Amino acid sequence: MSESTRITAVTSNPKLSEEEIFAGHLGGKLSVEATVPLDTARALSIAYTPGVAEVSRAIATDQTLAKRYTWADRLVAVVSDGSAVLGLGDIGARASLPVMEGKSALFKAFAGLNSIPLVLDTNDVDEIVETLIRLRPSFGAVNLEDISAPRCFEIERRLVEALDCPVMHDDQHGTAIVVLAALNGAAKLQDRDLKGLRVVISGAGSAGVACANILLAAGIEDVVVLDSTGIVSVSRENLNDHKLNLAGRTNPFGRTGGIAEALDGADVFIGVSAGTVPEELVATMADDAIIFALANPDPEVHPDVANRHAAITATGRSDFPNQINNVLAYPGVFKGALDAGARRITEGMKIAAAEAIMSVVSDELAADKIVPSPLDPRVAPAVAAAVAAAAKVDGVA
Amino acid sequence: MSESTRITAVTSNPKLSEEEIFAGHLGGKLSVEATVPLDTARALSIAYTPGVAEVSRAIATDQTLAKRYTWADRLVAVVSDGSAVLGLGDIGARASLPVMEGKSALFKAFAGLNSIPLVLDTNDVDEIVETLIRLRPSFGAVNLEDISAPRCFEIERRLVEALDCPVMHDDQHGTAIVVLAALNGAAKLQDRDLKGLRVVISGAGSAGVACANILLAAGIEDVVVLDSTGIVSVSRENLNDHKLNLAGRTNPFGRTGGIAEALDGADVFIGVSAGTVPEELVATMADDAIIFALANPDPEVHPDVANRHAAITATGRSDFPNQINNVLAYPGVFKGALDAGARRITEGMKIAAAEAIMSVVSDELAADKIVPSPLDPRVAPAVAAAVAAAAKVDGVA
Repeated sequence: MSESTRITAVTSNPKLSEEEIFAGHLGGKLSVEATVPLDTARALSIAYTPGVAEVSRAIATDQTLAKRYTWADRLVAVVSDGSAVLGLGDIGARASLPVMEGKSALFKAFAGLNSIPLVLDTNDVDEIVETLIRLRPSFGAVNLEDISAPRCFEIERRLVEALDCPVMHDDQHGTAIVVLAALNGAAKLQDRDLKGLRVVISGAGSAGVACANILLAAGIEDVVVLDSTGIVSVSRENLNDHKLNLAGRTNPFGRTGGIAEALDGADVFIGVSAGTVPEELVATMADDAIIFALANPDPEVHPDVANRHAAITATGRSDFPNQINNVLAYPGVFKGALDAGARRITEGMKIAAAEAIMSVVSDELAADKIVPSPLDPRVAPAVAAAVAAAAKVDGVA
Repeated sequence: MSESTRITAVTSNPKLSEEEIFAGHLGGKLSVEATVPLDTARALSIAYTPGVAEVSRAIATDQTLAKRYTWADRLVAVVSDGSAVLGLGDIGARASLPVMEGKSALFKAFAGLNSIPLVLDTNDVDEIVETLIRLRPSFGAVNLEDISAPRCFEIERRLVEALDCPVMHDDQHGTAIVVLAALNGAAKLQDRDLKGLRVVISGAGSAGVACANILLAAGIEDVVVLDSTGIVSVSRENLNDHKLNLAGRTNPFGRTGGIAEALDGADVFIGVSAGTVPEELVATMADDAIIFALANPDPEVHPDVANRHAAITATGRSDFPNQINNVLAYPGVFKGALDAGARRITEGMKIAAAEAIMSVVSDELAADKIVPSPLDPRVAPAVAAAVAAAAKVDGVA
């Protein structure tokens, strides 16, 4: 990345003022509009009584007609209990709502999908699952958001089983998809084989676990994950079920220790935690290192530091190049799944999404452009098409 | 009503074709739109990360800020279990959705309110109540719709207790408000005192009970209600709790028998049931009788029959004059309650709504115009203002 590029990126987004931010949220960020005329007696008779009775009667006889004659089949419920909101932690359902509204707004802006925020005043796994099962006829897909680990794993697993529709916890899989897309881009730019990369993931929460899973599914063999105690390894005691399972699938060379042992000679660092990695440890990474420091707002490795030791640097921030932003993934993933009528979202559909994201910039790859801009309008349609095709290949559509 | 008026009304709304109706519902009738720009990096940084974190943090510190910075405070959830949909009965949640979408569309068209349909795949009272309690931070008011009696009474009562926001079962109170409005109009036109009218209500379901309640609250003393067995009276055996309660508050002269005994000499017939009233019984009503035959699509007394014996006739149908349609009430009632920040909807607010509906046409009253047209744009603002004022008077705002 050249200095001039960075300066342009920074100055294109000068510091936001509190006034500007709060003014942008006054009254909320969503509106529900009628898509049919309601201004004449005749129009009212079609959209409401008596005409609507014909449509309800038809659906009562053949439930599949709800797909054609209601909005629910293509409606994404953005669901949160507010237990792990951005970097703010467990701030509760009400305080999470501005994030969920933003998510719904982005679903429409990037994929043309209708979406409603549903925030739940409970952290109980059973209650969250059962609430969504009861509401099932109201929506066509579920985007879980900002739910804390390890509850998020069980909630997602149980909803995938219980609901015959796409369900995805975006903090896990949206992040994982864009990380894989960026790693695809970096490997292609460096003309290296993705599968041979030695990857270190810092963070064993929802995003860390999902990143490990998608990188393994994409064929990378040497993936090491760290939590706050150090390298997740089968030799460690007192691991919970999720981490024991993770330890069994990662760290094939049985590394032990902390971030120093993990980073020494590693090709790729993926930070999805908090905390800072000291520069002297970054310096021990292999040549042509790739650093994705995704903690917000403070990356684990500041880009200025990373650039002294790595060939390619990405962050989650909009004021540096290579922004790894979930918005590159979820609008197209859900659109593709709904377009295909998919009953679930498979690992194959996620990998296809990652490849589609990278493919948009495959002819423009550079050290400061391994992923498209979050605003690139080519991304969501490409992702949707790839995901829909993969759903058919995987037999879920 | 003159013959020419009726012909105009009928021909203005020729029979709807199935094709036209179903085409009007393709893909559903609602759309969720963003109300903020999302097309630049800066706009994205305000509406979503990192800017949105400031707003979430502020609400976490002061929950009341959610009123200002989310859409939820003015969002109406239109909630049904599909157990009593129009005249179709218990057709289930999925089949009820076109009706709920229509309702949400009308909330926007007539009152500018955002609204989302939430249909529940359960008929269990506890489950419905507990689901809405969990979802409480997601909305600002609840319009219950098409839920069967007597469950609707308990669900509404428990939600009014549990949620500190406006909750109204429209099949009960929307209907009751418009009936009272129409009766106000008829009494004023005839220069009679509302309170002295002798009223017969056919139907002791959700609408019948609510009509009885609002007419009693408005000061009418002689209200008799009939169910399928006959006049609801304390002398009857095996009445359930709801009907026993109703019997204790109505029928002050202890009438017994059926529709013949009830109608003999009555001033007002309000039909909110099914079935037909024979013409010879209609003929026994008092002079200047008022007939509201609200069953859809087949009024209990056809207007042609009613007009031979009554001074004023109203139905629920759009192809006859004096359409008693809930859309005259609920948009303005919810708007007024939300404008005032009301914690609940009181009987006083409902009576104020009825008076406001009638006031819109008080200078235009005629036998074929005792209520405004459902499309009259003056109604919802007048109702909202009256309801908001009544909320303050009643101390709930």
